[in-house]
Amino acid sequence: MTNGNNYYANGNEVQLFEQAYRQRLPVMLTGPTGCGKTRLVEHMGTLLGRPVVTISCHDDLTSSDLVGRFIVTGGDVTWTDGPLTRAVKAGAICYLDEVVEARHDSLAVLHSLTDHRRTLYLDRAGEVVHAPETFMLVASYNPAYRSSLKELKPSFRQRFVTLPMRYLPPEREAEVIVAEAGIGLPTARRLVRCATAIRTADEAFHFEPPSTRVLVTAALLVAAGASELEAAQACVLAPLSSDGAIAEGLREVAAASLADADNSNPHR
Amino acid sequence: MTNGNNYYANGNEVQLFEQAYRQRLPVMLTGPTGCGKTRLVEHMGTLLGRPVVTISCHDDLTSSDLVGRFIVTGGDVTWTDGPLTRAVKAGAICYLDEVVEARHDSLAVLHSLTDHRRTLYLDRAGEVVHAPETFMLVASYNPAYRSSLKELKPSFRQRFVTLPMRYLPPEREAEVIVAEAGIGLPTARRLVRCATAIRTADEAFHFEPPSTRVLVTAALLVAAGASELEAAQACVLAPLSSDGAIAEGLREVAAASLADADNSNPHR
Amino acid sequence: MTNGNNYYANGNEVQLFEQAYRQRLPVMLTGPTGCGKTRLVEHMGTLLGRPVVTISCHDDLTSSDLVGRFIVTGGDVTWTDGPLTRAVKAGAICYLDEVVEARHDSLAVLHSLTDHRRTLYLDRAGEVVHAPETFMLVASYNPAYRSSLKELKPSFRQRFVTLPMRYLPPEREAEVIVAEAGIGLPTARRLVRCATAIRTADEAFHFEPPSTRVLVTAALLVAAGASELEAAQACVLAPLSSDGAIAEGLREVAAASLADADNSNPHR
Amino acid sequence: MTNGNNYYANGNEVQLFEQAYRQRLPVMLTGPTGCGKTRLVEHMGTLLGRPVVTISCHDDLTSSDLVGRFIVTGGDVTWTDGPLTRAVKAGAICYLDEVVEARHDSLAVLHSLTDHRRTLYLDRAGEVVHAPETFMLVASYNPAYRSSLKELKPSFRQRFVTLPMRYLPPEREAEVIVAEAGIGLPTARRLVRCATAIRTADEAFHFEPPSTRVLVTAALLVAAGASELEAAQACVLAPLSSDGAIAEGLREVAAASLADADNSNPHR
Amino acid sequence: MTNGNNYYANGNEVQLFEQAYRQRLPVMLTGPTGCGKTRLVEHMGTLLGRPVVTISCHDDLTSSDLVGRFIVTGGDVTWTDGPLTRAVKAGAICYLDEVVEARHDSLAVLHSLTDHRRTLYLDRAGEVVHAPETFMLVASYNPAYRSSLKELKPSFRQRFVTLPMRYLPPEREAEVIVAEAGIGLPTARRLVRCATAIRTADEAFHFEPPSTRVLVTAALLVAAGASELEAAQACVLAPLSSDGAIAEGLREVAAASLADADNSNPHR
Amino acid sequence: MTNGNNYYANGNEVQLFEQAYRQRLPVMLTGPTGCGKTRLVEHMGTLLGRPVVTISCHDDLTSSDLVGRFIVTGGDVTWTDGPLTRAVKAGAICYLDEVVEARHDSLAVLHSLTDHRRTLYLDRAGEVVHAPETFMLVASYNPAYRSSLKELKPSFRQRFVTLPMRYLPPEREAEVIVAEAGIGLPTARRLVRCATAIRTADEAFHFEPPSTRVLVTAALLVAAGASELEAAQACVLAPLSSDGAIAEGLREVAAASLADADNSNPHR
Repeated sequence: MTNGNNYYANGNEVQLFEQAYRQRLPVMLTGPTGCGKTRLVEHMGTLLGRPVVTISCHDDLTSSDLVGRFIVTGGDVTWTDGPLTRAVKAGAICYLDEVVEARHDSLAVLHSLTDHRRTLYLDRAGEVVHAPETFMLVASYNPAYRSSLKELKPSFRQRFVTLPMRYLPPEREAEVIVAEAGIGLPTARRLVRCATAIRTADEAFHFEPPSTRVLVTAALLVAAGASELEAAQACVLAPLSSDGAIAEGLREVAAASLADADNSNPHR
Repeated sequence: MTNGNNYYANGNEVQLFEQAYRQRLPVMLTGPTGCGKTRLVEHMGTLLGRPVVTISCHDDLTSSDLVGRFIVTGGDVTWTDGPLTRAVKAGAICYLDEVVEARHDSLAVLHSLTDHRRTLYLDRAGEVVHAPETFMLVASYNPAYRSSLKELKPSFRQRFVTLPMRYLPPEREAEVIVAEAGIGLPTARRLVRCATAIRTADEAFHFEPPSTRVLVTAALLVAAGASELEAAQACVLAPLSSDGAIAEGLREVAAASLADADNSNPHR
Repeated sequence: MTNGNNYYANGNEVQLFEQAYRQRLPVMLTGPTGCGKTRLVEHMGTLLGRPVVTISCHDDLTSSDLVGRFIVTGGDVTWTDGPLTRAVKAGAICYLDEVVEARHDSLAVLHSLTDHRRTLYLDRAGEVVHAPETFMLVASYNPAYRSSLKELKPSFRQRFVTLPMRYLPPEREAEVIVAEAGIGLPTARRLVRCATAIRTADEAFHFEPPSTRVLVTAALLVAAGASELEAAQACVLAPLSSDGAIAEGLREVAAASLADADNSNPHR
Repeated sequence: MTNGNNYYANGNEVQLFEQAYRQRLPVMLTGPTGCGKTRLVEHMGTLLGRPVVTISCHDDLTSSDLVGRFIVTGGDVTWTDGPLTRAVKAGAICYLDEVVEARHDSLAVLHSLTDHRRTLYLDRAGEVVHAPETFMLVASYNPAYRSSLKELKPSFRQRFVTLPMRYLPPEREAEVIVAEAGIGLPTARRLVRCATAIRTADEAFHFEPPSTRVLVTAALLVAAGASELEAAQACVLAPLSSDGAIAEGLREVAAASLADADNSNPHR
Repeated sequence: MTNGNNYYANGNEVQLFEQAYRQRLPVMLTGPTGCGKTRLVEHMGTLLGRPVVTISCHDDLTSSDLVGRFIVTGGDVTWTDGPLTRAVKAGAICYLDEVVEARHDSLAVLHSLTDHRRTLYLDRAGEVVHAPETFMLVASYNPAYRSSLKELKPSFRQRFVTLPMRYLPPEREAEVIVAEAGIGLPTARRLVRCATAIRTADEAFHFEPPSTRVLVTAALLVAAGASELEAAQACVLAPLSSDGAIAEGLREVAAASLADADNSNPHR
Repeated sequence: MTNGNNYYANGNEVQLFEQAYRQRLPVMLTGPTGCGKTRLVEHMGTLLGRPVVTISCHDDLTSSDLVGRFIVTGGDVTWTDGPLTRAVKAGAICYLDEVVEARHDSLAVLHSLTDHRRTLYLDRAGEVVHAPETFMLVASYNPAYRSSLKELKPSFRQRFVTLPMRYLPPEREAEVIVAEAGIGLPTARRLVRCATAIRTADEAFHFEPPSTRVLVTAALLVAAGASELEAAQACVLAPLSSDGAIAEGLREVAAASLADADNSNPHR
């Protein structure tokens, strides 16, 4: 397994991200699971020479978890900055992963950071923090989640420059798999063909399509000695659905895609 | 990017706001996202020579967050004023942004401040604060949020002088964009034309229409080197909807509005 | 603006309130927003020579907020009376404003105060407080709130002498407006005519009708220089509804009512 | 107003209550609001020579509120018995008023007190309290509350000897009113006639019928100078319903019942 | 009243309980209210010479209530075992009464105690407790509760040897009543006949049928001087239902069952 | 009863688990109750020479329960690692049993552990823990739970190599029962035949089918002296359903399966 920190560009997202950074505008990345949102942020951090502070959003994330809280140590009560406040003070790129999962009231503290004020008000600490020029706020969410009960408020979405992300084209994706998992190109191509077939079927079945990440995972299993079919079953098909009928259909799609592999391990 | 603190009047709102201030009446600003509510409050603070204390309302805002609480420091328990109490004591303009988001029980502390008593009762601290003449309470909310589950109680709304706000007329809006983003008037006009087309379509689609703010953001991206279409895509269209069919329709509307731009960057 | 503490009687409510006080019976005031419930209580406090302790009820009001709680100060834990306990001990009039908003479990502490026992049991403090003869409990609620999910339990309502309150007759209401806002009688009459027209329309539209309070507010804006139509728009019409179609109809009603005003400010 | 502690028997409830006490069985009193449940308990306390500990049940009553909790005083943590534990230890009658309102999990601590064990387990304090022979548990609830979402579990109800309570017969009820409020018998009879008419109408209207308590309250207002119609309006009719149509019908019922009163105050 | 600790066997439940104990398997008792589940556990504790630790389950029972928690005493924080931990360490029979009422997350701590591990993991205390050979876990629940919203998870139920319990056959039940309440056999038989008639009717009416316990309670009232009809009304019929129509039908069933009693007290 | 730690392989799950371990990929085990998921994890721990840290997931499991929290001891506040953090630092196999039961926000802390970062961010402690090569995350869940309201998010499922588990084939299962419970093969075969019949009927009835575990439990009861029918009733049938009609049908299926046993205990 390689170090996994490489980013593979797929359009004008690097250019627009940098222009937003220059104009001190916040950015929202949208797109399906595993299409590279997190890696783009890490890549831009390296490119722009800024540290990245990542915050995984969830239902229970309070605004105190973001900005900080008073903590009792010894007999004293001292204020401790949260990751957002630390990122603002450090002029870092603050990345809110899956922001739609956060409690919406927690997001209210972001308002003054995402408009012309670029300021963080720490009401409880009685402190006002002006963001340095290099601070940038980036958020991500997956709009394809049709089953999600939550939605970002339009007024919140309008605060961001929005960059829609997509899967790589097949040949590029296969190259990425080869680079990441160290397997041969023919195996990588068959895995991509299998994923593409399922992504097309997704229109009808409404499950989350397989990401580049699961293809790399499958390739890693192949590199470890599994057959292509075993690897595709365990990494690509099994996570998709627990509904028997659909699972059966998917297995046929996969088998057809991998048909020209001899299912002894071609990599060993 | 300019300092962004300018306000562009759009009717009799400045005059009525000042008359309410002179009669010591609270004001409620209503209108769509980004039509200038926050900027009006900042502008009136400057005009009337009063500081503005802004409180972003959300689901989790307790009355203690507004009026204050007892805090343990060292071994002692001392009362700490919240932002509302600080604003009352300072005779400031207290601005409750998106007040409809607040828990309604938190709003009960406002009753005695918004009628002839103009008094804040701090039950827990056992203190009664009479507002000085210069104190003013301002709230805002967006009635166009048809999807909101919450509504302000009529008895609460009747406590305020209500000033409905609207978008600027197109030519004024274009001038604002030029002033804020430093781009040429033809580009600004095309962006406004694009927004106006979408705002009209809004009747049918029920999404939040694009604000003046997103047009300024798009203009800033153009100023940074993006083409008009790239900028409109990232700032105006992408935040509107994640529904594919609607997105396609909007893209055509945008492309037509920007048709006479050569989509190399006219600003560079 | 006058001091706003005047009360304008509208039936036998003052006499019945006083008889209930003499027999040591609790009183419930019912009626629409702004018809004078709070002012009646303040008036009776003055008339009977008793202080008034007002408690604004809301969803989050616990019985501890009413009766008191243990508070840590320094290293000790001491009991602190809540406003209800303070009112009982002082033999004051305790006024529970909008009692229907309170959590019903919080109201259970009132049972022993509202029957022949006239006693407050402080279970946590282990104290029993017998109300002095001058203690009186008064509550208010607005039964016209058809949209309210909550209702007072019948067994709770039966513990009170119930006094239904109504708006003043038009000519009396106009006199009140003149006295409160210092404007001319013709303007006051036109504002009352406008309110009466809307209150009649209320049957069909189910919004909260405009109170005497909003008419006084509108009159104050006129006194500050606004035209009658501007004032009626901002204070009477705008708070009523955010539904476009209804708003349009109301505007016509208002314009007709104010038709014989020259809409330059007649008061200046 | 008399001291209000008298009890007026209405069947075999006193005898059965005493038999249950002799056999050390818990008792459940059921019946409509104000039919005398609380007074029976107070009466039996006097008759059996036992103190009565009353606990008003509500949604927020925890088992800790019943049995006790650890409290920090100075630097130490000491256990403090709750009212139920105090009642068990004192061999008192413990009266759980409106037990159906309590959280059902809070009632689990009663199980071992209401079967052959007659024992209270204080799990957190690590203490086991055996009830003395004179301890008795009494609960009440109002099964006529058709709108209640909560119901007592059958297994809980089966732990009690159940005594259903009813209103007094009219002539007895009138005598009670005379004794309690000090008014003349003709007025008392007319008030009872008015209540009986409404209680009959209750079948159709499903509101909580007026209790003996509200008739005594009305009589007290008459004794203070109100007319019979004023008193009946404020104490009997107004608390019943806020629905206009029903209110109108009730007013006619009341007026007819009181028709032979001269509505100047016959008591003065 | 006898001491009430006798158990009356009703099938092979004693034998299977003992076999499960010998194989160190947990047991689940199911059956209607008052059919003897609790008494079987107490009986087996005596038979096997093990102490019984009873835990009444309810909605608010946390896993900390079961296993223990850190408690602050003086200035120190010390771990205090909960009743489950105490039972495991003592090798006792731990009886979870009405386990279906517990929060399901609280039951997760039981998993490792109910499979081959027979181990309690105290994650917060960082302690692992291996159950001694004599430790046994017993739970009970009432599957006839058709109205219950909660259900035990199948995977949880499969962890137990399940012993379904039933009412005693009529003649045995009458003997139990005689032994427990000290009344004559004819009265006991009539009370059982009354209960049997109602239990049969239960099929149609869906209420919880009367238990042996309520028959003993009724017999105790008869022993104290009540007539059989009075006792059956107060103990058997009144707790069943508050629905008037059903109550009427049940009264006829009861009266017919008790018809050959002279309803003066045959016991006195 | 044997020590119960044996694992009986049923496909390529051991090989794929090991390949995932070698590539440092997390694994998800799916399948019905009692098919051996927990035992596979224990088996692989032994095989790979790594300790296993098991966490039973439930509704109330917070991320603090996983990663750790600040605890007050004496007068100081010290950070205490949770079981997940301990597992990461020890390079252990961390097993999240029934992961679908956990609150989804608690699972967010796993994201950075399950992708190329293999890092645990302890935001509150301000610590970053990089997992050693031997650390492995394993989760399990039962997709056959059709009644479950919760579902794992697809993006979460795609982070794992998924290994579907099934029941053993009948002859293998009978051998396991013989080995675990020490009974004869004919009895074991009859119990398996009984289970297989019910598992087939499961398609129609939608209850959780009986696991190998309950067959071992039944066999243990037989070994202790119960008849096969008694044991099958108590361990296999009774936990399945409390619906009378279904129970009757199942009893017939069981009796037929066990028909050739003489129902005196063949094992004694």
